[in-house]
Order: sequence, then C-alpha cells, then structure tokens
Amino acid sequence: MTNARDPREIRRKCSRSIAGHHTQTLPQILHALADSVQPEETPDIYGQGKLINDFEAEVAQLLGKEAAVFMPSGTMCQQIALRIWTDRRHLPRVGFHPTAHLELHEFQAPQRLHGLQTVLIGSPYQLMTLKDLQAVKEPLGALLLELPQREIGGQLPTWEELIEIISWARERNIATHLDGARLWECKPYYQRDYAEIAGLFDTVYVSFYKSLGGISGAILAGPADVIEEARIWQRRQGGNLYQLYPYVLAARKGLAERLGHMEAYHEKAKAIAAALATFPQIEITPAVPQTHMMHVFIRGERGQLTEAALEVAEESGTWLFGAWPYADPRLSKVRALGW
Amino acid sequence: MTNARDPREIRRKCSRSIAGHHTQTLPQILHALADSVQPEETPDIYGQGKLINDFEAEVAQLLGKEAAVFMPSGTMCQQIALRIWTDRRHLPRVGFHPTAHLELHEFQAPQRLHGLQTVLIGSPYQLMTLKDLQAVKEPLGALLLELPQREIGGQLPTWEELIEIISWARERNIATHLDGARLWECKPYYQRDYAEIAGLFDTVYVSFYKSLGGISGAILAGPADVIEEARIWQRRQGGNLYQLYPYVLAARKGLAERLGHMEAYHEKAKAIAAALATFPQIEITPAVPQTHMMHVFIRGERGQLTEAALEVAEESGTWLFGAWPYADPRLSKVRALGW
Repeated sequence: MTNARDPREIRRKCSRSIAGHHTQTLPQILHALADSVQPEETPDIYGQGKLINDFEAEVAQLLGKEAAVFMPSGTMCQQIALRIWTDRRHLPRVGFHPTAHLELHEFQAPQRLHGLQTVLIGSPYQLMTLKDLQAVKEPLGALLLELPQREIGGQLPTWEELIEIISWARERNIATHLDGARLWECKPYYQRDYAEIAGLFDTVYVSFYKSLGGISGAILAGPADVIEEARIWQRRQGGNLYQLYPYVLAARKGLAERLGHMEAYHEKAKAIAAALATFPQIEITPAVPQTHMMHVFIRGERGQLTEAALEVAEESGTWLFGAWPYADPRLSKVRALGW
Repeated sequence: MTNARDPREIRRKCSRSIAGHHTQTLPQILHALADSVQPEETPDIYGQGKLINDFEAEVAQLLGKEAAVFMPSGTMCQQIALRIWTDRRHLPRVGFHPTAHLELHEFQAPQRLHGLQTVLIGSPYQLMTLKDLQAVKEPLGALLLELPQREIGGQLPTWEELIEIISWARERNIATHLDGARLWECKPYYQRDYAEIAGLFDTVYVSFYKSLGGISGAILAGPADVIEEARIWQRRQGGNLYQLYPYVLAARKGLAERLGHMEAYHEKAKAIAAALATFPQIEITPAVPQTHMMHVFIRGERGQLTEAALEVAEESGTWLFGAWPYADPRLSKVRALGW
C-alpha cells in the first residue's frame, strides 16, 4: 500500500465506471461539441438565437410546459421560480425539505437575495409526507419538492403520495415547484412520461450535467408569462450571459444520447444493489434503488476503504465511487451511482 | 436595392471588419479552444481546479490585486462587489454615472436583489466630474466608475481628474469599484500599466468577451478577504457553476492573443476617426478616440444607411459597424469600433 497514488490518474486509466460517466479529456469534449454543431447554427446572444431557443422549446415540450428558459445554473432557476410565485401571492414564504439544495448549498440565498422566509418540512432522513405538510401551521406562497430526493439516496414518493401532496398545496393556493435536477432518473420508477410528472407542478427545473453528462446549465419551464418574467430575473442575477452556447450544445448532446438509457441505468443500479446487499458490512439506501442513485454505507476505516477502492480500480480497471468516500458519524458513507 | 439581403450572411463573407472581431463559426471556435488545452489540464469543479485558479491568479497579478474570482458575468461581479462594500460600511447606498450598466441594463437588480439605494451622479452625456461628486449631499457606501465610459463613446477622464475623484471618495471612506468591462482598452491613453490604473480602486471587474474576443465571463479582483466573500455571493446568485472551463479557456486565449494589440487598435481607431471627420454628414464622439471605441453619428435616413452599409460590405468585403445602426432622436447613431 502506498500513498503515492493519484486518484485522478487511476480514474483516467479505468475503462469502466460504476458511478458517473466515463471521464473524457477536455479536448475530447470540446471537439465533440464542435462536431455536434449544425452548419447553419450561430452563437446565441443574450439568450436569443435559434440554437438556444429551439432547445428551450424542445425541453418545454418534453416537460409539457408552455415555455422554458435556459440558465447557467439550477440555483438561479429555483430562486427565480420561488421569487416569482411568492411575489404573485404577496406571500414571501416557501416550504421545502430540510435537505433541499436551497437549504444546504446556497448560503441562505433565498433569505439574503430574495427576502424569502423558509419553512423546513419533514425529516431530513425521510421523504416529505402529507402528514408533515398538515403540521405546517403558517401559510405558504410556494412549495418545492425534489424528485428524486438526492440527499437520501434518490428516494421517490409513490405516485399516489405525490398526488396527495400536490392536492394539499393546490387546495391552499400554494404554487408548486419541482426541483427536477435528477428528474430524468424518475421515469423508470413512475413509468410515466416526463410531461405527466412535470405536469403536476406549476414550474419545473431540470439539469443537464448530471445523468445527461453536460458541462453546466439548467432549464426552468412553466407558463409562458412566468418564463418571460424569469428572463428578467435571470438578467438581474447575472445569468443572462452574452453567450451560453457551450452549455446548450453539451445539454442538447446529452439529452439526445443519454435520455433513452435511464431504464438501463436503473436496472443496472438494482443489480449492483442486490449484489452489494449480500455483504454484511454494507448498507444501501434505499434498499431497492428507485432511480439509478443509491447511498452506500460501508462499515470500516475510511483510509483503508479509500485505498482498497483505488486498488480495485487499478487491478480491475473499474472505477467504484461517484463522490470520494467521506466519513459518516455512524458509517463510512459513499455516495455512489449518482451525484 | 433589395430587401432580400441577409446581414449575417453578408458579414460572414466579409474578409475584414472595422468594428469587432472577424466572426468565426462555432466549430472553428470550439476546435481552437480544444487545441489550447494543456495536456494535464482537467475541468474545474465549482470554481476549484488548476485551470481556473491559475487564470484567476494571472489576472489578479496583471491588475495588481491580491486575489481574483472568475464569474459568468460582469453583472454578477459588480452587484457582489457593491453589496460587500456597502455591507461593510453599514450603508446600502451606491453612486454611479447615469449610464452605468447597473442603471441601464440590470432591471433594478441593485434595488430588487440587494436592497441598495442608488444615486446617479453627473450628466448622462458627459463624464462624471469632481464637481458632480461635490454636489452629492448624501453619504455613500461605494462609488462605481466606468473606464472607459461606454455609453458616451468610450471617453476617459485624465489621470489627474481620476486621482481627484478617487481622493474625494477616499477622504469620505467611500469604497471605490472600477467597472473595467473595457479596461483593456485604456492603456494606450493613460500609458500606465493595468495594475497602476486598477490600483486606484478597491475592487475591479474586467470582461473577456469584448476586445479580448472570449465567449462570456468576467473576473472580480481585489483584497483576498473580499474575494473570499465574493465567492459566497457568487454561489448565492447562482454563478458558482459546476464547470466554467469553456469560458476560462476562451478568456485565457483572448488575453494571450489580443492584449498586446490594444495600442494598434487605438492607432487604427484614431486614423479611421480622422478619415471620417472629413465628411460633414458625420460626427464622432469623442472627436479623437481615447480608446479604440467611438460613437459615429451619421446624418441620414436609417433604412438607406443600413442598405448602403450592406452594399459597401458586399462590394468591398469590409464590415462596417459593430452594433446594427439604430435611430437617434437627433441623428442616426451607429456604435462602431466597440461594444
């Protein structure tokens, strides 16, 4: 066992990857993008142009929404959606799961930038339930749901539970927004079109650099008037970039090449989970993956596990983990098969 | 004269361009970016990585600042700088020229997102003067200056006037921020290093997709603690993207290939201005260009001028204007030789 191992170097030499996409070099990615350009296509300018607007229309249709706008990040899409919905209801209060991206990864942006009050609903270790919502005693302007719930291994409520939650919100005139960062992964579980899933919500955000393998970038889709207003907020937040085409080209390529693989990814994830389940040192959340994401908990010493994973990669040419293993208070937790 | 002309098609066939860079196709741009990657370079991840951090350090040094952070847009850089400075002074009020980008192009983002009050200083048709500042009767947390002042043809104050303005602010503990979207163009006029010009200010923003021909993207440079705080705000505004490398690669390429040409661009702009000045139908602002930007006012009917410019382009292979001619209340105004 040596400390001189360079994980990135080892990963580059692997021919297979259990978690995430096989890595490509920067020149490979950029040459492939160049080759994906149609002869007549020209750069977008401040959000306008056939390339970007056609892609927005394609995704709007896929999601069954009137309109869509491409933005640099999901952080931007979601803050903007929540701001618009709460402005319209004159009620700057939003509810979401305690592990929502807005709560964990945005440094209180809803509060600091948009003056929103936030209500955390339910347990950080479980999906939000109708009962959790019924316990909320303050009026809400908007409710955000994340499908699948990334921080608990990509769990999904049943379709019936989802309908109950949405109905609860609609009865109270609470706008509903879907954090669909990994929405693409939900189709095998629900066995419904994306438009049907997104159709439950007033607005939906989707990402292109996770399962679809893009570079960065996101789309917010919803009613045409909301999307028009979102473009103003996009400018305000500094996201109406002079040119977004590298992200758009990569997103389009990822959608065309990978969206059809979600069922196969899910089947593979379930097979891997079943194989891992035979080891008493390993726990998986959820026990049967509902998407192609799962959380893998391994009992053991972190440094040793890390070295062992690198050894496996070197010997078998198979890369094991998505994020690098990190310690859990209870177990060594490895986030695998997803982001 | 025919209406069937396609300006973009005509431009593509031109071999020379008086205003802006010669246009390249998307595949040309992307293949060239791919070829500019060094063998060991890998993508940045959420603002971290040798490629992006080395470039930030290079620009920080060029500007004589402790630290720098790459962001998707200047809109983001500037709001963040002003927010940080005014937070530190517990005084949410900023002053800038009536044609500042923050006033004209950001839909009141300083007010709507950051709760800033704005004070417009001076005339929209002239540079801000010390007298204009002395007329401000409210305390300010920060003062933003734009060098050169884009909306009035890229005008610049003298070095002495600049020192007076900065001294006025410093004496009042007002933070100073430089909108250096076109700072690269100022060196021929001041005959001083960028570090000396930027050194007058507490923070500076520079852009990479104007004279330097990048795709999009900007850098905010300043004291290390301010830049660290700016990274938090960048996350909040949705600009801490998963990957920014297409913009970083294009910015680095533009800086390496074009920064040394600013003197030549300026000489050419002065020669063109002198030639245009012989026509009584044409007025130029400023009469002698101080950067390689100028505003060209042509007396005439807009449609006819547009057609004439296209005819010139078709016949001579030389593209004339940067932005497409637009009508001025007084004259037909053409923004040429810059953005």
